[in-house]
Amino acid sequence: MQLPTHLLKLIETLKLLPGIGTKSAERFAFEMASWDEAALVRMGTTILELPEKLHSCPECGALSDQESCSLCSPERASQKKLCIVASQKDVFQVERTGQYFGLYHVLGGLFSPLEGVGVEALGVPRIAERIRLQGVEEVVIALDSTLEGDATALYLKRELMPLGARLTRLAFGMPMGSSLDYVDRGTLGRALAERGSF
Amino acid sequence: MQLPTHLLKLIETLKLLPGIGTKSAERFAFEMASWDEAALVRMGTTILELPEKLHSCPECGALSDQESCSLCSPERASQKKLCIVASQKDVFQVERTGQYFGLYHVLGGLFSPLEGVGVEALGVPRIAERIRLQGVEEVVIALDSTLEGDATALYLKRELMPLGARLTRLAFGMPMGSSLDYVDRGTLGRALAERGSF
Repeated sequence: MQLPTHLLKLIETLKLLPGIGTKSAERFAFEMASWDEAALVRMGTTILELPEKLHSCPECGALSDQESCSLCSPERASQKKLCIVASQKDVFQVERTGQYFGLYHVLGGLFSPLEGVGVEALGVPRIAERIRLQGVEEVVIALDSTLEGDATALYLKRELMPLGARLTRLAFGMPMGSSLDYVDRGTLGRALAERGSF
Repeated sequence: MQLPTHLLKLIETLKLLPGIGTKSAERFAFEMASWDEAALVRMGTTILELPEKLHSCPECGALSDQESCSLCSPERASQKKLCIVASQKDVFQVERTGQYFGLYHVLGGLFSPLEGVGVEALGVPRIAERIRLQGVEEVVIALDSTLEGDATALYLKRELMPLGARLTRLAFGMPMGSSLDYVDRGTLGRALAERGSF
């Protein structure tokens, strides 16, 4: 006997979620079939309202629910800092630290020739334009420390260097709360080379 | 800066999914914010239509999208077999094997004193009634091999034994494709004790 058609339809849509395969989607779907109607209505309408309630800021590319993006405020612009991140989620990861106050620029992806994403997709002319218009003095490159992240950072460095703004990048070192045993050689070497006074 | 309100609302509803905490829910929500409207509409409406399109069969308790549950068909009833499972999902797990054709009974949970689920919740009188009315000759107990599953199976055995139907239970043994190294001692012992001719 086949699964009920509507359940299969639900499973198919749940499989669109990142990292969710058939097994997890089935688990979700059967669980959802046991929810009361109120919970289903809450989730269903929230999803349907997404396009109307959230949008990408045309200026910085971050996710926003306000008419004017709070991340593009004049107060932030006056800091003359621009933080370049890969995704909308990364904006909030940086914000959560409380260590940065300034403008953002969301790339929307990393340079990845293997996945067919060329450097054009990074939109460097637009970044350069923002740096010029806002008189940015420091560009903070906050990208993943992966092959794609490093390649993108190097490309951005080459392209943005001539604009005169100071380029900085996230520090490398021991993750907080980690043990030497579990830190890879490269990271530990970097942490040693860049050791600070204590 | 806080996450946009609507995104927080979406994250809260996604956290209702089994095994999904804040981290995964955030990952889902940011990904969904990048979906095109069609995908959101498909998922949202599918969720909203769940209560109308799916129901639990009042007879066997399985999930169904038909007026009359295909698992309660006269053809199945004529086999005089009743398979007792814990959840609606387990019905389809058993169906997928192609090794069973007969009626089902979904308990909707297992006896679990620690979680405050007493034996009354298993609805034994209703099972007994079905066994009598359908003239069931074999009751297949297909429950998890856990503390709760075993306790429930033993309780069902004690209660259903007097009805005269043959009680059977899923076999224990080596999982297919497993290596002796990874099979626990209890399972291996059971597999040895119940070894078959080859």
